[in-house]
Amino acid sequence: MEETAQAQLTEAIRELLEGGREERLADVLAGAHPADVSRVIRELPLEDQVRVFRLLTPQQAGAVLAELDDPILRELIGSLDEAEVSRALDRMPSDEVVNVVEELPKEQAEELLDLMEEEKAEEVQELLEYPERTAGRLMSPDFVAVPETVTVARAIEHIRKAKTGDGAFYVYVVDDHDHLVGFVPLHRLITADPAAPIRTIRTEDVESVTVDTDQEEVARLVQRYNVIQIPVVDANRRLLGTIGVDDVIDVLREEATEDIQRLGGVGGDENVLDPPRSVLPKRLIWRLVNLATAIIAASVIGLFEKTIAHLAVLAVFMPIVASEGGIATTQTATVVVRGIALGDLTRSVLWRVLWKEMWLALATGAVSGFALATVAYAWKGNLLLSLILGVALIFNMLVAAVVGTLIPIALKAFRIDPAIASSVIITTFTDVCGFFSFLGLATLLIRFLL
Amino acid sequence: MEETAQAQLTEAIRELLEGGREERLADVLAGAHPADVSRVIRELPLEDQVRVFRLLTPQQAGAVLAELDDPILRELIGSLDEAEVSRALDRMPSDEVVNVVEELPKEQAEELLDLMEEEKAEEVQELLEYPERTAGRLMSPDFVAVPETVTVARAIEHIRKAKTGDGAFYVYVVDDHDHLVGFVPLHRLITADPAAPIRTIRTEDVESVTVDTDQEEVARLVQRYNVIQIPVVDANRRLLGTIGVDDVIDVLREEATEDIQRLGGVGGDENVLDPPRSVLPKRLIWRLVNLATAIIAASVIGLFEKTIAHLAVLAVFMPIVASEGGIATTQTATVVVRGIALGDLTRSVLWRVLWKEMWLALATGAVSGFALATVAYAWKGNLLLSLILGVALIFNMLVAAVVGTLIPIALKAFRIDPAIASSVIITTFTDVCGFFSFLGLATLLIRFLL
Repeated sequence: MEETAQAQLTEAIRELLEGGREERLADVLAGAHPADVSRVIRELPLEDQVRVFRLLTPQQAGAVLAELDDPILRELIGSLDEAEVSRALDRMPSDEVVNVVEELPKEQAEELLDLMEEEKAEEVQELLEYPERTAGRLMSPDFVAVPETVTVARAIEHIRKAKTGDGAFYVYVVDDHDHLVGFVPLHRLITADPAAPIRTIRTEDVESVTVDTDQEEVARLVQRYNVIQIPVVDANRRLLGTIGVDDVIDVLREEATEDIQRLGGVGGDENVLDPPRSVLPKRLIWRLVNLATAIIAASVIGLFEKTIAHLAVLAVFMPIVASEGGIATTQTATVVVRGIALGDLTRSVLWRVLWKEMWLALATGAVSGFALATVAYAWKGNLLLSLILGVALIFNMLVAAVVGTLIPIALKAFRIDPAIASSVIITTFTDVCGFFSFLGLATLLIRFLL
Repeated sequence: MEETAQAQLTEAIRELLEGGREERLADVLAGAHPADVSRVIRELPLEDQVRVFRLLTPQQAGAVLAELDDPILRELIGSLDEAEVSRALDRMPSDEVVNVVEELPKEQAEELLDLMEEEKAEEVQELLEYPERTAGRLMSPDFVAVPETVTVARAIEHIRKAKTGDGAFYVYVVDDHDHLVGFVPLHRLITADPAAPIRTIRTEDVESVTVDTDQEEVARLVQRYNVIQIPVVDANRRLLGTIGVDDVIDVLREEATEDIQRLGGVGGDENVLDPPRSVLPKRLIWRLVNLATAIIAASVIGLFEKTIAHLAVLAVFMPIVASEGGIATTQTATVVVRGIALGDLTRSVLWRVLWKEMWLALATGAVSGFALATVAYAWKGNLLLSLILGVALIFNMLVAAVVGTLIPIALKAFRIDPAIASSVIITTFTDVCGFFSFLGLATLLIRFLL
């Protein structure tokens, strides 16, 4: 559904809500995709969210919950009866129930699980025992596995009996001890001779992950090897579940949002529609951190207050040197952080990257230093001042190259998210160095400048 | 393959290259996944890239080419014989050949296509006629479609005869005029009664895209509806091809990289391993744009040079007001740009988002304005100066909220990538407003400040 169609659906539902036409509304909702319904819900006030939710079939209601995120999910569930929610959760695959339950406060989650069907609740509990952001927490325990001794025809029998839905695309092959020893795409199974042993058509080389693999690593593997489902095994290679590419896409989207936001000094999981109160703490912290780093930079200027009192024009040019250092660090850190996230920046290429950034610093520093010196000379007619500006700029570009490359890499080495090296932190270095080099040189040469 | 395993493979291949042990090297390469081989190739000098490439089977060589990007792809192909390359391309699905050929200079691409098998080359030519970044350019013309009148058993016959590989996960159902009228996942086909008409088991409601749909929209739909393949139709709903989720993941990754990089003032498709010469122009342009905007901001300071000459301490505090405006705009613009990319920020919620940002501006402005005023008073003991700082800061936060929200939205309305509203452009407003409000207020009240 394209953006305009989505807007029309929202509009139609709003009108039916206002007119109190619940029956017609139920019809409209029954014909809509849960993903679209969840988008409408996010834009409605809470009481209307509840009204819409109650008109959905339990099947649809579950699918809608799976699409919602905290804080909207938590608010909506808080306004519903627990019985309604658990009925909807009963219709969902257990890995999707996990997605919902893990976003709720512990007590509420437990009450819901108590009300759910026992078998499903147990499956969910088991998945919840794996740490967040691991393959175990992400996997679905529904898959088809067949012994390596069966024929193609028997494997198809297995598929018929299993309760996996249309989401199964591979049959996994296991040995006597449930160890994963291969897989067969359904397409190959269909086109194979029914009498052939499955052993002869399986792919033996199967990329798998263990339950404790980080979800980012899972996403990287699925992406790299172009698979649509990756099996999850325990330490003994026993098959426990599978992760589908749809979950991987969600992980990739989350991780990209996290990187983009952290580089911009935002929490990492903020949605543009989140209520302001819920995002205030994280926004404020970064603004206060920035205030602190800006005061540090200002204190460097404070060292040269006397020089500025003698020559106020220094105050005019000084932010330019800092600002150019800022964009240079931001550029470098952005490319480096993204390179780390994509797995391109490994230890073996570190020097190559540092050399590249130094090269770029010198090349761009020479051009922009010359440009700045020319503008400054044309404006103020002071040759020495222009030269000092150019030199300080080139120096600051080199600082930017080193800081922008090494700080994210160092953070990664200490297992801290390199994206935290947002411009807030990292440009402090170039602010300080920019002010210091420009004002310092000017102070040293003040008698020739006046 | 995890990062350390990848590093070991790279190391092993490097050693075998140095020792000239081509035979052993060919064995190692034969056992490696093309995705891993392509990662090794990216880290090698060009002559070694060629040596490795020549040891691959044509099948593997094609898959490796499909994984490489410009400029490495272009350099490698430039160093090989055209016949070798076209032999490798002949083994690849035509949509992947498109991926390779579209990155090459036009002449080189045409020469390669001339050398390829005619049928494959024609298919590739047809795909290349669709504009870049559209569904048509991205789709694969290999898929299984069956008439709506057949039985399940006949549909399975169709699959056997079709030459699609293991990558087919759905059978598409078409009417007499090749119009798409439904689909059946292979899993459902396997478990259905062979005598049942396909009409009775197909899903009628099939999300599809047209050939001219933007690839970003394709990715958004696949992601929203959790499908693993989306059919591509022409204006008359005739089925022409399909786009798999692996291509969608590549699009999502590219788009995320583009957003992250553009927000950081980088080209959008820079890889951390790109040679410095090839990225210089884009890096330099943004550094020069930033220089120009910094000079504009400096010219605002220039208006108040006399005030600063009287009271140099203003120069110390002035960058703080600008810097806080900078982080506030960056935060706002980051959340807004990501919200647009994820499809969350639609016209109907514009006021809600603007209101949220104004609220945050006032709340964080009050806290950080108070903090700054306190620090400034403790440092310099000038109460009026501290008050001016606090007021200028709050004002600048409000400017940041408006600019950070509206500029990306306006760009989007003019069909310009909102991520281009990187901090470089957008913080110019808060720099100018920050300097102007602080220095302006100080100039008005100068007689009480001295």
